[in-house]
Amino acid sequence: MIFVRENGRTIPKEDKIFAISNRAKEAIAKYGKENVINGTVGALFDDEGKLIVLKSVDRVFKSLTPDEYAPYAPIGGTPEFKAAIKKAAFGSYEPKGFTEAVATPGGTGGVRNTVSNFSAFGDRVLVADWFWAPYKTICQEIGRDIQTFKFFNEEGGFNIDDFKANVLELLEMQESLVIIINSPAHNPTGYSLTVNDWRNIKAIFEKTPQDKHVALLVDAAYIDFAGDEEQYRQFLPVLDEMPENVLPIVGYSASKTFTMYGMRCGAMICIAKTPAIAQEFKQACEFSSRGSWSNCNRAPQTIIAKIYADPELKKMVDEERAEYRDMLLRRGRAFEKAAKECGLEMVPFDAGFFASVPMPNPDEVAAELEKENIFLIPLAKGIRTSVASVPEDKCKLIPARIKAAMERLAEK
Amino acid sequence: MIFVRENGRTIPKEDKIFAISNRAKEAIAKYGKENVINGTVGALFDDEGKLIVLKSVDRVFKSLTPDEYAPYAPIGGTPEFKAAIKKAAFGSYEPKGFTEAVATPGGTGGVRNTVSNFSAFGDRVLVADWFWAPYKTICQEIGRDIQTFKFFNEEGGFNIDDFKANVLELLEMQESLVIIINSPAHNPTGYSLTVNDWRNIKAIFEKTPQDKHVALLVDAAYIDFAGDEEQYRQFLPVLDEMPENVLPIVGYSASKTFTMYGMRCGAMICIAKTPAIAQEFKQACEFSSRGSWSNCNRAPQTIIAKIYADPELKKMVDEERAEYRDMLLRRGRAFEKAAKECGLEMVPFDAGFFASVPMPNPDEVAAELEKENIFLIPLAKGIRTSVASVPEDKCKLIPARIKAAMERLAEK
Repeated sequence: MIFVRENGRTIPKEDKIFAISNRAKEAIAKYGKENVINGTVGALFDDEGKLIVLKSVDRVFKSLTPDEYAPYAPIGGTPEFKAAIKKAAFGSYEPKGFTEAVATPGGTGGVRNTVSNFSAFGDRVLVADWFWAPYKTICQEIGRDIQTFKFFNEEGGFNIDDFKANVLELLEMQESLVIIINSPAHNPTGYSLTVNDWRNIKAIFEKTPQDKHVALLVDAAYIDFAGDEEQYRQFLPVLDEMPENVLPIVGYSASKTFTMYGMRCGAMICIAKTPAIAQEFKQACEFSSRGSWSNCNRAPQTIIAKIYADPELKKMVDEERAEYRDMLLRRGRAFEKAAKECGLEMVPFDAGFFASVPMPNPDEVAAELEKENIFLIPLAKGIRTSVASVPEDKCKLIPARIKAAMERLAEK
Repeated sequence: MIFVRENGRTIPKEDKIFAISNRAKEAIAKYGKENVINGTVGALFDDEGKLIVLKSVDRVFKSLTPDEYAPYAPIGGTPEFKAAIKKAAFGSYEPKGFTEAVATPGGTGGVRNTVSNFSAFGDRVLVADWFWAPYKTICQEIGRDIQTFKFFNEEGGFNIDDFKANVLELLEMQESLVIIINSPAHNPTGYSLTVNDWRNIKAIFEKTPQDKHVALLVDAAYIDFAGDEEQYRQFLPVLDEMPENVLPIVGYSASKTFTMYGMRCGAMICIAKTPAIAQEFKQACEFSSRGSWSNCNRAPQTIIAKIYADPELKKMVDEERAEYRDMLLRRGRAFEKAAKECGLEMVPFDAGFFASVPMPNPDEVAAELEKENIFLIPLAKGIRTSVASVPEDKCKLIPARIKAAMERLAEK
């Protein structure tokens, strides 16, 4: 670097995911989409390979007047948006704690503001060893780093013991701790923490030093694509019952739920034990927003507020989404079944956009698969397939092809 | 703070500007808009107090298909947007240096990414003593702070001597230096640096230590509301001729130029001496984006690309804007003339959204003016009036009212 100060960051020459995604697009242009599998994209596509945008949402978008999209929104979001996004995040559950919502650009902004406000420079943020790579980017960008715990135990469940060991270690080293748990329908594995997993987490915090504060960010970006909306929100009461030194924050993304990825809308919502804690959450997160991106895009705030103000419209949106969600769930199950049939080990999977396969040499296997026009994302500990962007018939084919590629490489 | 780690930031209980702005809105609701002057808003309103949105821009917005707004944009922006926004920023001037554009959420994002990539934790960023308050927020949010130089000399011109002294002091203390200059039509004073001011700045950098790097951010948010577009871009060749250790970056905002404040669109564009410097600018700024807000809102990128792909449409947008710009310039001149007539000293003014009046007690004078339903923004060294949000006939009244309020307080 010549002018750039790296400030402890590891700045790559190019974004690996975008590079693979570009090669996939080139292959489609060259060989036709029927001859290419593009499992790289983190967005929901229909079986014809077209991005799904809910028609009901598009209709509201088209109806917006200049007053509804052109003025600056308040830094923390419009009041109508804040009310609506809490309902979107919590469903029928009404938290006992004090909630404040702050608008963010997608889910990313909520992660960024949580790290910035609830950790100190130099701190480590605890994430699972199977993690969404930008968590590390976000931490490094503001002088923090990540530490990982083993997400799964030998039985294929949430590894509460390794989680506990890491929490204790970091609480010993630091004045406070930020933990990010991506669930339900975890990216990149598709695992969903059970209500019992959450109870075990709560039990741990009841025994850790009560003088140290923990911000527990639940990155729930995929909550509306895991299965029944109410069932997958049954962990929320456990968040509400966390001990006093734990501040649960729900990170919610409108990208997936309302199929408006490119509009950059999301929110971070606290569930605080006292009004004072909720108030300082709002103040500090709005300060961070002001000092990073200022206010957020108004159009999606208006759209979501309109959906929640109109029960008929809300019903249409929900029904439309449910159909696509069921399509997504079928794809995930088809992938899982095919893996079982060919004897390919998967990382514990439940639902959502992604499924992962563990292996020691993901970069090599991904490169091998590219030779036969299958484009998947190599991670540190395995390969991620976006079943969200691949039709069901192709989801059935992928596991055997991964297995064959692994075996070819093992023979070399 | 209970959970929040302040990390050296000064987090206010509330945003002062938003609070005053809310009181102005309440007064309008209570007393009628004809009896209230709301000079707080940094957006262009017509004489009826309605936010101006270019009809040509709204027409493109309404025509967008889901494919044009719903997919994620690339982190640095769509290729068509990058090409268009360079033309928007540079006008007919074609830089000799190597340019790279990175999309940002409004002008704010470009300031944030500049500070993050071209200064180190703990550094001071040099800004004028009349400065847009969020510069300080942006710096503090990522562990930097600001240092100010005196913007004006005794003759009411750019204070090149104090600028030089501060540059030398900071280059002595730091390994690198970020400087932010908001021009033309500076917020909050309305001053525009002359081509000669820019030549003097260049002359200084030719004599400062060449082994230390300077990132010179020109925050040009108001460039299309200063006067003739070509005339106000005559300083660009001087940026192009800066010495090798200076990296000019133009911060450009679509909020004002395309009246899309709420859509959060802007760009940071470097003018680099070598392809390698331009490339690392792109890499590092895209890393910062990925780790702060990820990609930017796609809709405004599509709109701007469409405008630049269609000469007829471009002409309509420019003509519509020119009419409103002339309205704005008339307001500024009316304010200036009225100040002269009543003998009120103004901070050197040229054009744009804002005009400022210096005084030792801005908070008291602003409070005094609120009593007569005039809402203006108190800054550290004076009071700012947004002529962008006040009709011409009211612009004529404000200076005498400020003067009277100052005199009443002086008599107490």
